[in-house]
Amino acid sequence: MIGEFSVRTRSRNDAVDITSEVQNIVSRSGVSEGICVIYVPHTTAGVTINEGADPAVMQDVLESLEKLVPWRAGYKHLEGNSAAHIKASLVGSSVQIIIDNGKLSLGTWQRVFFCEFDGPRTRRVKVMVS
Amino acid sequence: MIGEFSVRTRSRNDAVDITSEVQNIVSRSGVSEGICVIYVPHTTAGVTINEGADPAVMQDVLESLEKLVPWRAGYKHLEGNSAAHIKASLVGSSVQIIIDNGKLSLGTWQRVFFCEFDGPRTRRVKVMVS
Amino acid sequence: MIGEFSVRTRSRNDAVDITSEVQNIVSRSGVSEGICVIYVPHTTAGVTINEGADPAVMQDVLESLEKLVPWRAGYKHLEGNSAAHIKASLVGSSVQIIIDNGKLSLGTWQRVFFCEFDGPRTRRVKVMVS
Repeated sequence: MIGEFSVRTRSRNDAVDITSEVQNIVSRSGVSEGICVIYVPHTTAGVTINEGADPAVMQDVLESLEKLVPWRAGYKHLEGNSAAHIKASLVGSSVQIIIDNGKLSLGTWQRVFFCEFDGPRTRRVKVMVS
Repeated sequence: MIGEFSVRTRSRNDAVDITSEVQNIVSRSGVSEGICVIYVPHTTAGVTINEGADPAVMQDVLESLEKLVPWRAGYKHLEGNSAAHIKASLVGSSVQIIIDNGKLSLGTWQRVFFCEFDGPRTRRVKVMVS
Repeated sequence: MIGEFSVRTRSRNDAVDITSEVQNIVSRSGVSEGICVIYVPHTTAGVTINEGADPAVMQDVLESLEKLVPWRAGYKHLEGNSAAHIKASLVGSSVQIIIDNGKLSLGTWQRVFFCEFDGPRTRRVKVMVS
């Protein structure tokens, strides 16, 4: 089953917790044991799994990526958003989570985050449950 | 269904668009809705999804990786290609794409790139459609 | 089929070859052709595929990550282990490997490594074979 939803990001770099939206699609699918693939169809955004209890964790992730890949650094791509493309390849455009007993089998502290690197924008997320 | 093809890279760092080869395997599989896994069986190369319209994007990705992980930096591995191994772990050895209506469900600007970090060489790519 | 095992790490940064444990679960599953997902339910650890013949390769990977993301760098997260969280998002919390003829279809030099970034600890690894 393929599901889809949109995410509104609030700044150039942003991390949005999308765990509930993904779990809703898993629940609607009726799949009890399987794999859930979360896929971002954009080239200046990504998706990652990390701690959700303290929002400072994802702030640190975004700021560290900004230090590693500065917005301006003599890039060739003329649109000016190369840093966002580079971060997308570092973080990745998909994650997968095991489904066990109808639930995303996440660790205690794990949440799924949409990672915006060239916002603010409205973005799409695709989810495949099998 | 498992498919496989080879890629000829042209320099130490290179990005080769393999989207058509992957779509051909998906089409031959006859799978209408599912997942396509693209897997690189090498430890000094990777695979990523990023913008294909402007080749400068992947040039910027490769150059940024080269700045983050320089070819020479006092590495322990005596073969001299540690930087390529490190980049392989940053970029990753596989990507997955949802198949919808027999097609790779890529975003408007997304293409699949084989990433060479220790070329030029002839490389293999494995594809699983399920 | 879902399997699970534990890994004992020996230092803050560590790479543990878990290929045999994963292959054992694949063998017990009886699956001949499919996909094996290896999933780390932690937010300060990851999993990667890289060269196993020379242990210096994974040492270089861990040391390069330490240079890119130093342990102390004015992070906001008060627990003090932000670097480990950041590395987890760079390396990723899962890998997938094609299963062919009942075996993990790894390249000649590829092994699967659990990556510890905030050890030493006892960790869990989940494996889904489908």
